[in-house]
Amino acid sequence: MSTIAPEQSSDLDDYLLRPNPADPRLTERVTGIDHTGAKVTTAVTVERALTIYLNRQEIVTAMTIGDYPDYLAIGYLLNQNMLQPDDVVTGVDYDEDLAVAVVRTERETDYEEKLQKRVQTSGCAQGTVFGDLMELIEGAKLAPGMLRTSWLYALTNKINTTPSLYLEAGAIHGCVLAQQDRPLVYMEDVGRHNAVDKIAGWMFQNRVSADDKLFYTTGRLTSEMVIKTVRMGIPILVSRSGFTAWGVELARKAGLTLIGRARGKRFVALSGEDRIVFDQDLSYVEEESSKHRRKAAVHDD
Amino acid sequence: MSTIAPEQSSDLDDYLLRPNPADPRLTERVTGIDHTGAKVTTAVTVERALTIYLNRQEIVTAMTIGDYPDYLAIGYLLNQNMLQPDDVVTGVDYDEDLAVAVVRTERETDYEEKLQKRVQTSGCAQGTVFGDLMELIEGAKLAPGMLRTSWLYALTNKINTTPSLYLEAGAIHGCVLAQQDRPLVYMEDVGRHNAVDKIAGWMFQNRVSADDKLFYTTGRLTSEMVIKTVRMGIPILVSRSGFTAWGVELARKAGLTLIGRARGKRFVALSGEDRIVFDQDLSYVEEESSKHRRKAAVHDD
Repeated sequence: MSTIAPEQSSDLDDYLLRPNPADPRLTERVTGIDHTGAKVTTAVTVERALTIYLNRQEIVTAMTIGDYPDYLAIGYLLNQNMLQPDDVVTGVDYDEDLAVAVVRTERETDYEEKLQKRVQTSGCAQGTVFGDLMELIEGAKLAPGMLRTSWLYALTNKINTTPSLYLEAGAIHGCVLAQQDRPLVYMEDVGRHNAVDKIAGWMFQNRVSADDKLFYTTGRLTSEMVIKTVRMGIPILVSRSGFTAWGVELARKAGLTLIGRARGKRFVALSGEDRIVFDQDLSYVEEESSKHRRKAAVHDD
Repeated sequence: MSTIAPEQSSDLDDYLLRPNPADPRLTERVTGIDHTGAKVTTAVTVERALTIYLNRQEIVTAMTIGDYPDYLAIGYLLNQNMLQPDDVVTGVDYDEDLAVAVVRTERETDYEEKLQKRVQTSGCAQGTVFGDLMELIEGAKLAPGMLRTSWLYALTNKINTTPSLYLEAGAIHGCVLAQQDRPLVYMEDVGRHNAVDKIAGWMFQNRVSADDKLFYTTGRLTSEMVIKTVRMGIPILVSRSGFTAWGVELARKAGLTLIGRARGKRFVALSGEDRIVFDQDLSYVEEESSKHRRKAAVHDD
């Protein structure tokens, strides 16, 4: 768990969980040369294997930074529809040496058949998505929810100025669970899907309601990102990045508010626009400064 | 196939294949609202399913923009080690309505057992990687190769100014196969792994040698990206984005030249530095201008 150091600003106190870029297990220092040929030492993000079991069954091996194996394992199983919201998790056994996390449930589980059928999904929001997606999307009952633009600007400003592995080493994805203008849980991982799954696992373990929440991601608004957000029951999804056509179509079917290309004062909403309340005087919002712009000036994945 | 219009600059003539942002099948126009509440129409990237068969066996369903299903199917199978470099592909049947591509080989194939074992890999370089990875990496025999820094700067400048789906709609990955300072094949896709696989498929079908080539990607230098480049036999891998620790470790084991954070005049090399020849007078290289900086000022995936 990241701890909040006393010298840090009060905005950081809003977080229940946030990145701990000082954790020595999450980055590695390596040496090489720069564009002048000079020797340099730089921090790079780690990625390590974690094999997830559901009771006696091996489900998947994921590559992760490894900071919250319990939340990742539970969230992965939830987002794959192998764990149900009303399931009782009796425990998660994590063995660091074996790189294994075993999620144990009261209910007996058997997904042998499901594991035969793989649908690979696009982009960073990688993974193997099972089950009746369209039923999930068309049957979605997302809360009415509301997003004031003043919340959105305050929230994205807080996220962009929060110390993170991204600012330390780059090459990582971030996702944030937020309520109004308050960021609650900020997870990072080498795979964006892992960051999402860790938040889903945290919500499940802490029995957090999704109805009044907003989900923020650094990554693209692909079909899989929309599916995961709907499965979590969160009515609003915001990204700095762009859209895919199928992501937009699924968001509209599910009644999800989908906001992309959110940078500085700009954003575009392509679904669920009715949840947005334009209460912010835009003359008081700054364009994103180069200081707060994320280092990677491109789609880094 | 993209065609080269006469009004375009001679740099574009270098390409054997490059993005065709004007292809109406690859983007969709959708309406929404912007940050002022005004109605806007914008282009978004498509993603559609493609189910890949190897002879009689269904292998995977990938989400792709769908521009080169034949190269994608062959490249996917090659990079999964299900197709061997010396295999004879007798044909690829693509059915657009069924969204199926069937790769047929002379050799009889059966990967039922392999399909039971899934290793999910990180980041955008998504996928299910089978087989004896460490054997591949440690047994890699990459060509001596050479990279002049003057080629690198000329090449990245050409790539950044090439019309693309990225510039048109964003939310997409790009990969380029290059020779010295000449970009040969520029592929884009919603999943970076697809862009890589399409290039691998193109190389296989056109019997192109990898020894004197360079691979450029917009995405991160993860373990999977390194594995795919080594499997393709290309000795040099360059990215605008950052590194993961395992990516660096595998590149060093394989003797791959790994260059990241390549923007404007800057880059960092963390493996295979001996292939780099510093022949460029840096006072003649501009910092990346905001015009040529890619739109998404963040890790978009």
